[in-house]
Amino acid sequence: MSVKRKRYFLTEEEMPKQWYNIQADMVNKPQPMLDPKSGKPVDVDTLSRLISREAAEQELNMTDSWIDIPEPVQEMYNYYRSTPLVRAYGLEEALGTPAHIYFKNESVSPVGSHKLNSALPQAYYCKREGTTNITTETGAGQWGTALSYASKVFGLECAVYQVKISYNQKPYRRSVMQAFGAQVTPSPSMSTRAGKDILTLYPNHQGSLGTAISEAVELAMTTPNCKYALGSVMSHVSLHQTIIGLEAEKQMEKAGEYPDVVIGCFGGGSNFSGISFPFMRHNILEGKKTRFIAAEPESCPKLTHGRFCYDFGDESGYTPLMPMFSLGHTFRPANIHAGGLRYHGAGVIVSQLLKDGLMEAVDISQLQSFDAGLLFAKAEGIIPAPESCHAIAATIAEAVKCRESREQKVILFNLSGHGLMDMAAYDQYLSGSLTNYSVSDEEITKALESIETR
Amino acid sequence: MSVKRKRYFLTEEEMPKQWYNIQADMVNKPQPMLDPKSGKPVDVDTLSRLISREAAEQELNMTDSWIDIPEPVQEMYNYYRSTPLVRAYGLEEALGTPAHIYFKNESVSPVGSHKLNSALPQAYYCKREGTTNITTETGAGQWGTALSYASKVFGLECAVYQVKISYNQKPYRRSVMQAFGAQVTPSPSMSTRAGKDILTLYPNHQGSLGTAISEAVELAMTTPNCKYALGSVMSHVSLHQTIIGLEAEKQMEKAGEYPDVVIGCFGGGSNFSGISFPFMRHNILEGKKTRFIAAEPESCPKLTHGRFCYDFGDESGYTPLMPMFSLGHTFRPANIHAGGLRYHGAGVIVSQLLKDGLMEAVDISQLQSFDAGLLFAKAEGIIPAPESCHAIAATIAEAVKCRESREQKVILFNLSGHGLMDMAAYDQYLSGSLTNYSVSDEEITKALESIETR
Repeated sequence: MSVKRKRYFLTEEEMPKQWYNIQADMVNKPQPMLDPKSGKPVDVDTLSRLISREAAEQELNMTDSWIDIPEPVQEMYNYYRSTPLVRAYGLEEALGTPAHIYFKNESVSPVGSHKLNSALPQAYYCKREGTTNITTETGAGQWGTALSYASKVFGLECAVYQVKISYNQKPYRRSVMQAFGAQVTPSPSMSTRAGKDILTLYPNHQGSLGTAISEAVELAMTTPNCKYALGSVMSHVSLHQTIIGLEAEKQMEKAGEYPDVVIGCFGGGSNFSGISFPFMRHNILEGKKTRFIAAEPESCPKLTHGRFCYDFGDESGYTPLMPMFSLGHTFRPANIHAGGLRYHGAGVIVSQLLKDGLMEAVDISQLQSFDAGLLFAKAEGIIPAPESCHAIAATIAEAVKCRESREQKVILFNLSGHGLMDMAAYDQYLSGSLTNYSVSDEEITKALESIETR
Repeated sequence: MSVKRKRYFLTEEEMPKQWYNIQADMVNKPQPMLDPKSGKPVDVDTLSRLISREAAEQELNMTDSWIDIPEPVQEMYNYYRSTPLVRAYGLEEALGTPAHIYFKNESVSPVGSHKLNSALPQAYYCKREGTTNITTETGAGQWGTALSYASKVFGLECAVYQVKISYNQKPYRRSVMQAFGAQVTPSPSMSTRAGKDILTLYPNHQGSLGTAISEAVELAMTTPNCKYALGSVMSHVSLHQTIIGLEAEKQMEKAGEYPDVVIGCFGGGSNFSGISFPFMRHNILEGKKTRFIAAEPESCPKLTHGRFCYDFGDESGYTPLMPMFSLGHTFRPANIHAGGLRYHGAGVIVSQLLKDGLMEAVDISQLQSFDAGLLFAKAEGIIPAPESCHAIAATIAEAVKCRESREQKVILFNLSGHGLMDMAAYDQYLSGSLTNYSVSDEEITKALESIETR
């Protein structure tokens, strides 16, 4: 009756003081974002009308591999980081695999997910540059919660557009944002032109991430002293999230191991990039052979079934055109519980890396993701977020392969968040009423055509 | 724009290897529990029919100040402990107090509260003694969740009776228990005589902790190879929870401070005892003058308005008679959100300590508790459990006194759990629909009379 458990931490002194900017080391840089009107590459001046100047500079920085983490952000990181690197002995035992499975537990952050890692610097830069108000969109609510808290920390007013169906189905996420003092508006709303346009066309529209982005962007562009902040997709967000992988690298060293496979769930790319890029650096610079697997939902399969093209980041076409794997910016993903993965496109860095064969992608069905999540919960005592369940499913698939091939591979995945606010989904799963949502080839072809004929 | 944050941890080597048994050091020992039929003190043999023999021995151990933590329990403790000791700079700043406020963050356990600290050893002892099944009751669900997970860890079947109103109002707690593989039954149920009796008398009975205890106790007594486990009140539970205070003592040493005041919320006594007893030891043995404050809800005020007497631990009178501060075992607390504090009595150790003036108690209204919880959430980024909000309210009251007297006292409180499963309560608070439930003197007198005329 022995139980074996092991976690690894870093001391304050060992904590990374810089983020890793993979763009500087990429052989093929991401193609530039384009202004949809002029067709010209977007520069820092243009971008900083929307987001903080510092974030805009980071977004387009192709030269510095390392970027300093500001001290107030370090201070806040130390408040909840390092997050534990956990050897998943329980899961290994349940699977009977010779693989060594590790996970980075980002669910222990005050807001329950990795999203705070970028919310803090984004709020900080805004404050430092004299901005008073910040706005964003949120689907499942993880990002909105993180930005609400970060805004409270640095003394900014925060307005969040929450996808209406989440606003109504997950009222407790909204309550958390409100507890942190944010103003939360269900999207589409009548408070923006983008929202009104959609509501006029589709009176009962339940919202989408693309629409909510349009509303937040519009609010930022039409409000003095207000900036927009995004929780994924963009390169500066991936930059901030590298704190995950940088810590994990040092923690794996303490465990005396180096990963053969690194896995993250995939919506726009923030947590996948965060855990992967610091390890991918060694593939790029030193020829290491670690595999990187992005686990996306089969209902929103931009990496496995999308097309690499220039597309908008939002439904209304307010954002610059971005070179990315996309299902088309008007693609409407099914209403799966992993709300954070319901986005039509992938970030520009990840898109380039996938194109160049530096990473892989798999798609996971909703039922498969919850099968994996339940197994993990019983083995490790943590209820994973529906998003994270996708990474767990991909991890289990790899670990089962190791069982068959008797290989003792080292697998590292990112547990991006906990699922305590998503128990309705688990309830559905446990009662047998949860279903899959696959996308037909016709739907994808149709969505893709809308890009090409644009 | 500086933010100041500080947390203290212990290394695995620094982790306590023994629990502290305050009974051995108390000058006035707790009076014995009595068999209601014979009127004689309950011995280990009698008690171990209900709970594991090891727990029964710990319950009645008046001689050993230190009791070894079994290795498999240490291993599991290391999986989530030490929990952080946090200097609450954010709260201090919000209050403008010269006091130094620290909190022990028990919300980071896999199940979200301190309850796992006792669930693990109780499940372990049962397993070691050859028990296959374990049963318990739960109100808000924190304890049931902890025992469900601990049972999964040590390979026991677990059956939980959940107070019906919680079962229906907080379905997500139930889902978590089910995710860990436990059988959850709403109480009162038709599966026990105690349940049937109550449902016959009161057909729409929504349940109470006292009734759920009766049902679990009955199941344990009538099922072969099944033991009962309790999450609070009993002395062995307080013993296991001393891991909180023992860690905190070493962590405070790292911070270079010693508490003038130690505060915990109070239901049956488990988290209050856990944070307090290791520090109280120095009051008893070395004449230190630390104050200990138990914060109970004004709707269930056994410490501030109850009577010290012999009373049953459950509604049906299945348990031994215990010498405790009580409102009477038939007292029906109002349906406040802090379900974990809705219990009519206090543990025998705490009752004796209060009688002897070694600790104090305050009562907190529901609105006052949520005022405090919201302030804390904004300042520290953690949504506290409704139970923990009572400790925060008492802490704020002390810190405000320090502001007035300009004293730089050191206040330590226990954050027993997070409130992420209790957002419905916060929603009510934010929308202004939350109310207080005070108990009239007449109600208390009437409830107490029922004890005396028994």
